[in-house]
Order: sequence, then structure tokens, then C-alpha cells
Amino acid sequence: MPEITDDLIETEQKRLEAETEAGGYHLNPDREFVATLVRGLLENEGRYGYRACPCRLASGDRERDLDIICPCDYRDPDLTEHGACYCALYVSGAVVAGERTVRPVPERRPPGGPERREISSSGIGALPLPVWRCRVCGYLCAREQPPEVCPVCRAAKDRFERFI
Amino acid sequence: MPEITDDLIETEQKRLEAETEAGGYHLNPDREFVATLVRGLLENEGRYGYRACPCRLASGDRERDLDIICPCDYRDPDLTEHGACYCALYVSGAVVAGERTVRPVPERRPPGGPERREISSSGIGALPLPVWRCRVCGYLCAREQPPEVCPVCRAAKDRFERFI
Amino acid sequence: MPEITDDLIETEQKRLEAETEAGGYHLNPDREFVATLVRGLLENEGRYGYRACPCRLASGDRERDLDIICPCDYRDPDLTEHGACYCALYVSGAVVAGERTVRPVPERRPPGGPERREISSSGIGALPLPVWRCRVCGYLCAREQPPEVCPVCRAAKDRFERFI
Repeated sequence: MPEITDDLIETEQKRLEAETEAGGYHLNPDREFVATLVRGLLENEGRYGYRACPCRLASGDRERDLDIICPCDYRDPDLTEHGACYCALYVSGAVVAGERTVRPVPERRPPGGPERREISSSGIGALPLPVWRCRVCGYLCAREQPPEVCPVCRAAKDRFERFI
Repeated sequence: MPEITDDLIETEQKRLEAETEAGGYHLNPDREFVATLVRGLLENEGRYGYRACPCRLASGDRERDLDIICPCDYRDPDLTEHGACYCALYVSGAVVAGERTVRPVPERRPPGGPERREISSSGIGALPLPVWRCRVCGYLCAREQPPEVCPVCRAAKDRFERFI
Repeated sequence: MPEITDDLIETEQKRLEAETEAGGYHLNPDREFVATLVRGLLENEGRYGYRACPCRLASGDRERDLDIICPCDYRDPDLTEHGACYCALYVSGAVVAGERTVRPVPERRPPGGPERREISSSGIGALPLPVWRCRVCGYLCAREQPPEVCPVCRAAKDRFERFI
């Protein structure tokens, strides 16, 4: 485990910035704030072996913490509803553009973590989430709402249609 | 709204080229022709607030113009059938390789724009489009035909199979 | 068909390295070994017109060889089970990290190549493979097992859930 120097944080932050933008997401434009969170992620990686959310208390058991490994399972619904994830590490395009302000994001995680969903065998009527289709490229994803931009072709959210 | 200078067009064209290739698509190799279309896209962005197709008449109502925001909903079927989109901004790999010539592409858009599809609740038999699977990486997409290359692993079109 | 020089191999190897990492996969860290395989791929491209697997005997009929065009249809199940593809051109993250050793990978291809699957019309219960969902970004793919990392958001394999 390497020491968490400013250089390591800067390197990791740049990698995260590139990867985030490539996937159609955005980091908080406040780079100093992001650096603090990146330090927290690296500390958690050293402590637990995985990058647990720096704003939540991890159990240290990867299986139980799966949903709060960053990016957490709650990021995308929170981006849709609040314009930021729980930590405000990730923000929506509207926040980056200055059209929306980040306010505190309420905790969406159920106390003690989520129950694992069981897949019903009763067919497609029983799918736990809707499937969205990008009308431009045909990309399919299962989420509460479509992503801000299509990760494949960059089409905007309103180019998605409900598919299943 | 910045003035549309040659520098702005060049910057935007380079960004579009990189993004297009990264997604497994191709711009027309005629860069001067593409520059004209990029100017049209930027003009439409200034006029309407979104990059409506430069070769079609937009209504100015984003909701009604969704299908002709570039890349339009018709690009991919037109690439498959004609080797180019309606504007010939996007072309197929065969056109880039000189194996196919671009001819005028007939308008695929229904007059007045498309009717929004309603999703039937009668299950998977009622899906409005086939789902294709990349046999290499498992990527799924819903389109009339598979994409020219898999956007995830770059496998060619004939590596896709009908999945649903 | 250009001559297969060391320069061409190096250029092609770098392109392959970048594309592979971008998709969430890894090449064998032994660059000399990889260069040998890249030479084989380029030779097959010259001979057959497509990059048939350099470790298998191709028929020369693209249709019949589709499943062994590199990356082959068997790469991903072999990465999951053995940590490497049949050629050991691709290896898993655990192999790159030195946590797992590559051993000979048994041939997974049916003798004479695969039978093409027919899609049953009896609905979703008849899908030939499970559909996996990335709990972070909603990406869907149909594979025997989830990918090592999500190609869209880089979440690890254990962030996937069975969706259908």
C-alpha cells in the first residue's frame, strides 16, 4: 500500500476525471473538494481493500459494502433527483453548467444496506426496473430513469424511450 | 452564444471526430464538407438551443424535433441501408474504405415527425425492435439491425446474433 | 496488403493495447509474446481477409470462422474460468496483478465450430443466456457470467446482478 501523497492524489484524481467524463458523468468542478474525497477513497482502499464511499461508514466486509463502493449504487438516482451523489463527488451536467445548485443529498441507502433482489421466474412482467433504449444508437440499460447522456453515443436523456 | 468562427468550427469538428470514432462510427472523410455541416449544427444550436439536423427544417420545439437532433434517430438505419445518414455527415466503414459510394439518401422521417411508441404490457413478444447480442462481449442493443461495430469491443457486425 | 514489418506490428500492438484497456480488458503483460500473436493476426488478415485466431486452424470461410475471429467468442468465458483466453493474448486483471498464473487453456470450441443458435419465440423464459445488470450504471449484457469490469462505468464484476 503506497503512502497517500499529494502526488498520488493528483494522479488518481486525473485518472478519475478522464474516466468519469469518458463515461458521460461529471466530477464536482471544485477540484480541492474532490481531492479531499479522493484522499478518503485511497484511505478506504488501504483500510478495507476497496474504495468504500468516503462519506459513509463501511463495515469492512466487501460483500455487505458492495452498494457503497464508489461509485455507489445510489449515485445515478441521486444525480437524477438531486443533481449530485450523496458525497457530491459526482454532479449532473446542469450543476457543471451552473444551472442548478448542489444542496445536501438525503441518504437513499436503506439502514444496514440493501436486500439483494431475487429474480422472479415469472417473466418479463416481473423485471425489477424499467429498461431504457437510446433512440439514436439502441443502447439498453435498466435503471429507474435514463442516464444523463448515452454512454455509447452521447445522446441526451430525452432521446431515450422506455423499452420494457 | 459565441460567434461561429472558423476556429470554433475546427475545435468542434475535432471533438466530433474523436467522439465519433470512439463510438465506432465514422464522419464523412471530406473534412470541408463536414465543416459546413458543423457550422449548420452550431447555427441551429444558437437558434434553437439544440443541434437540429442541418439538412432538415426544425420546428424550434425540442420535443417535436427530438428525432432530428444530430445524430438523428434515422442515422443508424440509413448507415445500414445507404452507407450514409441523410446529410452524409456520418458514413459507413465501407464508404470510408472506398468500397461503397454515397448516393442521395431518401428521407426516412415520417412527414411531421414520428409518433411516440407506446410500450405494450403484453410482454416480450410485443417488443417494438429486435434485441441484438454481441457474441464477443455480450453487449445488447435494440435496433433494426446490429451496429457496424460493437461499441464496447469493436467486433464486426456479423459477430452479433439476434437475442430477443 | 502491407508487408508485416516490426514497425507495423508495434503500431498495431499499441492500438490493440489502447483499445483493450479502454474496453475493460487486458493484454498479456509479456509484450514480446503479444507481438508474436499480433504478427499471427496480421498474417491471417493477409491470408483470409480477417484476423482469425493465431492459435487455431481457420477454414478460410469467414462465415464458418466467425467464432474464432479475434477476440473470439470464447475469450470471455475463458477469462472467467481460466484467467486467459485460449492463446493467452488476453488475460484477466488477477493475472496482470500477479495474483493468478496462466496455465494452458483447454479448447472450448466445439469440433467443427458452433451451431448457430435459433431464437425461440416462446418468450423470455427461453433466452439462451442470462442477462446481467451493472448495479452502478444499469448496463445490460448477456453472457454466462458478468464481465470483469463494467465497460461503461468500470464497476467490478461483483457489482453486477442477474437481471433476467
